[in-house]
Formats: sequence, C-alpha cells, structure tokens
Amino acid sequence: TTTVSRRAKKLTIGLIPADGIGKEVTPGARQVLEALPNIDGDSPSFNFINLDAGFEYFQKNGTALPEKTLEIMKNECDGALFGAVSSPSHKVAGYSSPIVAMRKHLDLYANVRPVVSVASEKDFNQKHVDILIIRENTECLYVKQERQVTDELTGLKVAWAERKISEYASRRCGKMAFEMALGRDKLRQSTPLEKRFWKGKPKVTIVHKSNVLSITDGLWRETVRGVKENDHKYDSVDMEEQLVDSMVYRLFREPHYFDVVVAPNMYGDIISDGAAALVGSLGVVPSANVGDNFVMGEPVHGSAPDIAGQNKANPIAAIRSAGLLLEHMGFHQQALCIYNAVDDVLRRGEVLTPDLGGRATTQQVVDAVIKLVT
Amino acid sequence: TTTVSRRAKKLTIGLIPADGIGKEVTPGARQVLEALPNIDGDSPSFNFINLDAGFEYFQKNGTALPEKTLEIMKNECDGALFGAVSSPSHKVAGYSSPIVAMRKHLDLYANVRPVVSVASEKDFNQKHVDILIIRENTECLYVKQERQVTDELTGLKVAWAERKISEYASRRCGKMAFEMALGRDKLRQSTPLEKRFWKGKPKVTIVHKSNVLSITDGLWRETVRGVKENDHKYDSVDMEEQLVDSMVYRLFREPHYFDVVVAPNMYGDIISDGAAALVGSLGVVPSANVGDNFVMGEPVHGSAPDIAGQNKANPIAAIRSAGLLLEHMGFHQQALCIYNAVDDVLRRGEVLTPDLGGRATTQQVVDAVIKLVT
Ligand SMILES: CC(C)[C@H](C(=O)O)[C@@H](O)C(=O)O
Ligand SMILES: CC(C)[C@H](C(=O)O)[C@@H](O)C(=O)O
Repeated sequence: TTTVSRRAKKLTIGLIPADGIGKEVTPGARQVLEALPNIDGDSPSFNFINLDAGFEYFQKNGTALPEKTLEIMKNECDGALFGAVSSPSHKVAGYSSPIVAMRKHLDLYANVRPVVSVASEKDFNQKHVDILIIRENTECLYVKQERQVTDELTGLKVAWAERKISEYASRRCGKMAFEMALGRDKLRQSTPLEKRFWKGKPKVTIVHKSNVLSITDGLWRETVRGVKENDHKYDSVDMEEQLVDSMVYRLFREPHYFDVVVAPNMYGDIISDGAAALVGSLGVVPSANVGDNFVMGEPVHGSAPDIAGQNKANPIAAIRSAGLLLEHMGFHQQALCIYNAVDDVLRRGEVLTPDLGGRATTQQVVDAVIKLVT
Repeated sequence: TTTVSRRAKKLTIGLIPADGIGKEVTPGARQVLEALPNIDGDSPSFNFINLDAGFEYFQKNGTALPEKTLEIMKNECDGALFGAVSSPSHKVAGYSSPIVAMRKHLDLYANVRPVVSVASEKDFNQKHVDILIIRENTECLYVKQERQVTDELTGLKVAWAERKISEYASRRCGKMAFEMALGRDKLRQSTPLEKRFWKGKPKVTIVHKSNVLSITDGLWRETVRGVKENDHKYDSVDMEEQLVDSMVYRLFREPHYFDVVVAPNMYGDIISDGAAALVGSLGVVPSANVGDNFVMGEPVHGSAPDIAGQNKANPIAAIRSAGLLLEHMGFHQQALCIYNAVDDVLRRGEVLTPDLGGRATTQQVVDAVIKLVT
C-alpha cells in the first residue's frame, strides 16, 4: 500500500536509541524483531548497526547528528529505528534536533502515525479511536529558516521564521494519505462487517488553516484535494476538510469520525500528541518516517527524562514502530504478527507499564510480546 | 487585574454579529447586559451601535470589514461584542478575515480565554477544568505575510508565510498572563480553602516549540520568562513550560495541572479549541480581545452554518464574553453577576441547548440567564 517496498532477505537496520528512555525501548524493539518466526519461510533476518545521535551525544561531542551516522544509514542500512531525543531546556548554541535533520537528509517525507485504541469488536463505542495520521515531514515551520533582528529605534528584538509549503511536498504527502486510505479499506474488506469498527467508505480528512493562511495552507489544501480530483483511482475515497482548531476540538469530541487524517508538519505534530491522549498513553503510539527509499521507525513519545533509567518506560510504541518499519518495507505478515501480539498484551492487561496503570518493567512487557510473537 | 480599566457610567458598545449563529447569540448577550441590575448604584448604562462585518457582508459589498465599522469602533465605542465569522470554503480573491484585522487595527494584543467546567466544589475531580488561556493576538503566522512563487525548472508552486515573534508583543502578552495569575489568586484567597479547586500558588505555563523554532519560540520563551524574572511583583507566581505538542497531550490527560497558560497566537488558537472540548461544548467558551484602550468580547465558537437560523445556538459563550467585556472595563461586580447566573443555569441543567444535550432554544437560555441576573 505504500511507495516503499523492498523485500531483501537480510535487512540491515540502524539502531539510534539516542536519549533517555530511547535507550531502554529501542533494545526491546530489537529483541522483538529478532524473535520473529519465519512466517511461510518468508521472514527476513536482521543485521543491526548501533548509531550515535542525540542531545547527550551533542553534549559530549558538539554535534547531535554525526556525519557518520547519516552516511551509514544512507550507504549500509535498509531502514532504521530511532528512540527519542531530549530537548535542551535552555537555548544551546550549535544544537539542532537530530530527528528533524534525519527526516530531511533521508527525505523521509511522510510521518505515518496510526493511533488505535485497544478494544474487541464488542467494545466499539463512540470513543473508540482508529485513526491514521499522515504528517508532512519535510517542510512547514520545520525548514527552520529563522532570523532575528534588533529594531534600531527601540532596541527590541524581532524574530522571524519562514513557513514553507510546496506543491511538490504536499502532493506526495497527499498521495501517501489516499494510498493508505485504500490500503486500510482493503484490509477491512477481509474482515466480516460486524467486526469492523469503520463500516463506510474510506475517508481522508485534510487539515489546514486556510481561513488565515490563504496562500500557504491554500496551496496545501488545493494540492491535496487535487490528488483525488485528478485520479480516478481514489474515487472510492471520501474527502473532507477541517480547520486545525476545529480538528483538535472534534478529535476529542468525536474521534470515531476520523479515518485517515493528513496534515502539514506542525499541525500533524500537535494532532498526533492529541490523538495519543485518547488511547491511554503516548507510550503506545508508534510512527514511521517514510520516504521512497528509506523508512525509520520512531515512537511518538519523547525521551521522558523523569522516568529514564528506571526500567519502567513503555516499550510498546517502539515495538509497534518496528512493526511499521516492516510493513513499509513490504513485510506485511510479519508486521501483523507484531501488531497482534501487542494488541493481545494490551487486551489482557496483565503485563503493563505504569503509564497504563500497571507495574511491569520495560523488559517484562518486551518478554510478554515476544512470547506471543513466536 | 488588567491594564484596561475605564469606568464610564454610560458605555457605548459596538455590536458586530457578523455571520451565521453570530446573528443569534449577539442579541442574546445584549439583552443580558441590558437586564443587569444597578449593583451598589455602580452599574453602567449601555448604548449599542450595530456594526457591519463578516463573510456575508463581503459577498454583498466586496469587503469583510468596512472602514466605517473600524472608525466607529475607534471613535465612538468603549468596547465591542463580536459574533462569529464564516470562512469561505474555497479561496476567494480579496477576502480576508475581519476578526484578525480588527484585533490588529485596534491593537487588541491579548486574547483572554477562560475555560471552566461547571462543578460544585463537591464534584472536583481529576477532570475538572479551570484554565485561563492567554493567547498572543497580533503576530505569529497571523501577520499574514504570505507569498507564492513558481519554480522555473519544475513549474511547481512554492508558498511561504512569515511567522513573527517580537520581544515587544511577547512581553506585554506575558505581563498580561502574570497579572491575571495574580488576579485569579486574589479572587481565590477570598474563597474558603475547601471550596477552592486550585489550592497552590498561582502558576503560569508558557507554551512554545523552541526545540524546533529556537529563534522565534526561543525569543517568546525568554521574553515571557523575563517578565517574572525581572519583577519581584510576580515572585509568588510559579512558572513552567510545555512544548506545544506535549501541552495538548497533557491538557487532555491532566487538565487539573494547568492554571494560566500563555501561548503564541497559533498555538493559542489550537489549545483553546482543545480545552473547549473538555468542558462540554465550544458553545460555552468566551473570550475577550484585550488592548490597552479597547476590549472586544468574542465567543470562541465559529459561525456554525449547519445550525444557523434555527434558534438553537448556545448563547452562553456570547453572554460570558459580555461578562469578560465588563470585567476588563473594570466592572467586576457586574461581570461576576453574569458569570454566576450562567453557572447556575448550567448547574441546574434544565434549560440547555442541544450541544449540551438539552432542547432549549437560544432565547430560552437567554431568558433563563436574565431571570437569575436580575
Ligand atoms: C522532538 C521533536 C523535534 C519532534 C517533532 O516536533 O517532530 C517530536 O515532537 C515528534 O513528534 O517526533
Ligand atoms: C476565525 C478565525 C480567523 C479565528 C482565529 O483563528 O483566530 C478563530 O478560530 C478564533 O479562534 O477566534
């Protein structure tokens, strides 16, 4: 269902745990990948390469993303798993977010974020959530073209940032959204109607704020609309729009209203954290940074310095991100195997980390998933 | 508690119902103002002037905000009440949001948005909400400096918007936040401890995304922090920070964690709609656009074309906005009288519009408030 689909038998995966709990959850995800059974004799084997990046690395070495990490990713890896990065609490000269830089340098143009609450089909209710957020991942305010000037008369500072929206990036991100809407629909068709949460046509919701940003969000909106309007392939997909403020309101009032949501970078960042709040914990929401030639899995949560080093971080977002990595590399069966194992662990509710109200350690959750994977 | 404080005995208020349900809720708010009792012989009398603006007006007259409306506001009015404005669903040449323009032309630099759930002190729980959002109201992406270019090689469009953050605007907005935090605290002190929801020191949460926008949000962050750090007056106010994505997550997970929240324009827009979702309906959340010389009340909701003209719009946001208008003009007793009447109507739950699960009409809710106001 995506543009990425390379099915090597041996996959080289870069592991970039980076900061805080990233260092605890990434090894867990690795263990799950290593434990995958050889489904239909078709599963890949893995070769992992540990790579440096992050704020801690910056503090020791003066750079948050060493050239070598990027080079190895580009030249030796089929994909990567990222952990989490800490943000300096004060402005630090020379520091720049490594995750934003990796997305850009590897041209990982769509950030795919499925947000799903765990419920058996019996439990479906108005608050059930099964949303796929596609976040544009290369531009908007994330181009980081900022400058500061000092007003000569007043001596006061004025800062400016540029927000970029291009037809090129909007189109490929929009295309990803419609493709994935079709993919979800296909998967649903193989489920009996009464077991489906979403029973209608697939739907793509376009998020923007073109009532204020008529040129930039206007271009975003028209370009994404154009993806459907210019291609009969997407005739079966409904399309609607939400202003970003209403989107957040509606997300909380009627989450069951949304199927696939596509948004510019910054709105997508905010919306996905908002959606995570609906499914119990940021600790269960995965993402994949997807480009045409590379995929990088990344939990949506941060480095959580408050709980780092205590072996109680939830590894589920990282494990699911490993699943997304496989899915976007064409290993659908293997991805499903991971998703199902995780869903089972969550549904049973016996082995949960504290963010979900349990008392299990990171490793205990990893072990519970591995038991169900194999 | 604010920088605006003029206590004329006769107030001239501009009424700008604008579009959709704005035309139904604004007259309701007017009726409540007219029904106010003469508390301690100190209440103002009102003179209302109807003023044009909005998308419907644009469609007939080619402008969404006639010069005359601005002139009358500036020269004849002490304050104003705005209704709601429709957004064109497609790009319309020459159209520009009148509410954004009014905020700018009248220099209404802070948008004050109290979001409170109705509960008696017995009901206080983890999900109780009593948050005051202070949204910067003049800059950020709302400066609307946008441009579009066509790439010569590819023929594809690229659009740019400027985001402005100034020390000047950040400081006065930050000052408003700390002033209002002190004001809330003072009001609380006059309530017995067991009846207070917020029992600790007042707190200001600064929202930003300086891990990505180190220059613009960096300037915002440092300037707002500086307001407290450079003035002992605010020693009693706690200060903390949230990245905008975590802010939205936390808002939903732990709304009781927040007291006063101060945010740049766009984040403030999104957060206030998000917070509204926590208190039952956008239809109950008011705002005041506050400048040093003018205040304009404005419900946070939009023009709601789907229910316009059916006499079922919730007038409470508009009525509370009239209360905020009075509060920021220095009529605290009169504002309190409106807030209490509205709280009573909500608590009784007998006369509610459909958005809150009731069957009452707009006018019935207005009448219920008026009965309790007098
Ligand atoms: C760490 C930060 C730069 C990042 C972002 O804003 O993209 C994070 O919030 C995310 O969502 O992946
Ligand atoms: C109508 C729109 C321009 C406005 C805004 O974005 O400020 C509205 O959403 C609001 O919150 O008052």
